[in-house]
Amino acid sequence: MLKRIYFDANASAPLLAEARDAAIAALNQSANASSVHAEGRAARAEIAKARGEVAVSVGGKPENVIFTSGATEAATLALTPNIDSGARPAAARLYVGATEHPCVLGGGRFSAEAVSRLPVERDGTIDLAALDDALAAHDQGTGAPYVALMLANNETGVIHPVAEAAEVVKRHGGYVFCDAVQALGRVPVDIAALGADFLALSAHKIGGPQGAGALVLANEDVCPEPLLTGGGQERRRRAGTENVAAIAGFGVAARHSAHHLDESGRVAALRDALQREVLAVSPEARIIGEEAERLPNTTLFAVPGLSAETLVIAFDLEGIAVSAGSACSSGKVAASHVVGAMGEPMEIAKGAVRVSLAPGATEDEVAAFAVAWRAIHARMCRDRAA
Amino acid sequence: MLKRIYFDANASAPLLAEARDAAIAALNQSANASSVHAEGRAARAEIAKARGEVAVSVGGKPENVIFTSGATEAATLALTPNIDSGARPAAARLYVGATEHPCVLGGGRFSAEAVSRLPVERDGTIDLAALDDALAAHDQGTGAPYVALMLANNETGVIHPVAEAAEVVKRHGGYVFCDAVQALGRVPVDIAALGADFLALSAHKIGGPQGAGALVLANEDVCPEPLLTGGGQERRRRAGTENVAAIAGFGVAARHSAHHLDESGRVAALRDALQREVLAVSPEARIIGEEAERLPNTTLFAVPGLSAETLVIAFDLEGIAVSAGSACSSGKVAASHVVGAMGEPMEIAKGAVRVSLAPGATEDEVAAFAVAWRAIHARMCRDRAA
Repeated sequence: MLKRIYFDANASAPLLAEARDAAIAALNQSANASSVHAEGRAARAEIAKARGEVAVSVGGKPENVIFTSGATEAATLALTPNIDSGARPAAARLYVGATEHPCVLGGGRFSAEAVSRLPVERDGTIDLAALDDALAAHDQGTGAPYVALMLANNETGVIHPVAEAAEVVKRHGGYVFCDAVQALGRVPVDIAALGADFLALSAHKIGGPQGAGALVLANEDVCPEPLLTGGGQERRRRAGTENVAAIAGFGVAARHSAHHLDESGRVAALRDALQREVLAVSPEARIIGEEAERLPNTTLFAVPGLSAETLVIAFDLEGIAVSAGSACSSGKVAASHVVGAMGEPMEIAKGAVRVSLAPGATEDEVAAFAVAWRAIHARMCRDRAA
Repeated sequence: MLKRIYFDANASAPLLAEARDAAIAALNQSANASSVHAEGRAARAEIAKARGEVAVSVGGKPENVIFTSGATEAATLALTPNIDSGARPAAARLYVGATEHPCVLGGGRFSAEAVSRLPVERDGTIDLAALDDALAAHDQGTGAPYVALMLANNETGVIHPVAEAAEVVKRHGGYVFCDAVQALGRVPVDIAALGADFLALSAHKIGGPQGAGALVLANEDVCPEPLLTGGGQERRRRAGTENVAAIAGFGVAARHSAHHLDESGRVAALRDALQREVLAVSPEARIIGEEAERLPNTTLFAVPGLSAETLVIAFDLEGIAVSAGSACSSGKVAASHVVGAMGEPMEIAKGAVRVSLAPGATEDEVAAFAVAWRAIHARMCRDRAA
């Protein structure tokens, strides 16, 4: 059997060998990190080590890292009107970028009526003027505005000007939540430079195990109301026995994220070569978000008349794992809300195929992708003509 | 170095070798279970298999198993006034047993004012007459009553008459949440026989990995409002990329829980022998909840004048891992709310040491415990006299 090619790192990155080893070592201990005895202390030490590594990866402080079960939980923890903050009032309305992940678009613990969407430009980046307008119109008497803006989009790889947006938000006295899940290890991430109050991370998107994520606070004194309460874990900010194995692997992956940044030039060159192959076969293809700054590993393309669902299955049969937009729609392939928000027609939104390279991607893999694409495209155009 | 003795299974059970193997095999795949491609389908198949195994372990249906990151999340998911149910109204007030786990005592998503505590008898079991009285006084006009009652207490091992309590609740048109975390694999658990609407389980308490739990519904049509939204996972009842490794291990552990039931007679005999050793050395010791039916593996004892914190550390130095009540209080040892609710004086609540045996516990381990206890007790009584 031919070796398969995994070009779906944005759905779940391949587990790093070092993260795997750390997770398995922790699995073998399997004590409760809240226990007083030696086994419990060993588990607690694993978590403390990982906490430091995750903090360093985003320029934060260890005590401001709240481990969660993943980024969806981290976002839900962050997105609440009830923020415990010294000076600023609680949040009254949530403004979410139109291309945010579904777990952010839903508004977390805000009621549906208290969530507004912010438009993006044609290139997929947040419309800063519209953001300023929306916050100028915000009724400060009801409470502070709260803006959720991802650093890099999971489907297109488009990088939002979060630092600029955060400046606008701060001018209006608001809070900023930044989903940095896809950015870490691909572009530099620094919580202070971004100006975000809260940053969400996910282990399995950076080569760690599934089942761990984090909400990183910029400031210990500005903290959302806990989502899970009970035990005193995570300084009473997140109850529940810690998943020590996943957290230990998360720490290792966070440490490696710095090395992966060094790979970004090489990965971007491979991604660009792949895009050229797509366009060489199908000049009518659209590379979505190409005009914006993007993650080095990601490309989202669509060929008018070809459906993403069919293409993903065709690539899979050729031994190549790619995705139709994001992977979070429970197996169903719907039109991409991201592509739609960028003003693309439905045909493009329903045809968008995401290719996302892992740090270990090779030229040979891209060459094999090109061969497969040529075959798939020829077959589909033939079928369409028939 | 002497082999350590791990008598803290109720905090986190030792990982079963088979569960470990399943978790590691799944770790090595590490695709997103929502992905359409072969790697995603393989991950999805792992989850489906585990779902069936967890369902069988409690007599439920696979489609009624909602995987979560653990029991704290499962409880928080279940404990909401907003229950989507055909005929019955939403819940207006939550009644929690006084000896529930802190993640239930807090009331989940109920406001603090909408939570009432139900007293327990001296033996630690729920006071059924008080339950009936409380529900008779419940204002049905505001909505249905909702009762949270654990099957087995994590500290004492005391088994509550959940089926009888559920009959009372049903008579008053209420909902029942049952935390079966400590019961599974130790006593028979059957969701229909218990009469519970919702059952919470935790993988790492039954020999599975940390990071997976489940809320099992008795009826597909009676479902709490989701806690985490975004992706379409778990039939839109729990969003977030699944922790495939932990879930795969959970499935294996759930399958083994039936075998562990066969061990319960042997484990109970060891536990009883251990209790006799405690009392032989210290006749003034109290075995808490001894009068009630208890889990076979658990004993909670206190010696007047000796603090649990000191005892746990002393046992740890002798190479034996035990716990002061539960492990969820972030390393701090406080007075046990469970023991307090049973009407015991503060001295006993602050002195309660939990010994909880894993299925693999041996006579030699109990003998070593007895030797250690003799030494610790003699030393402490000497210190106290000095």
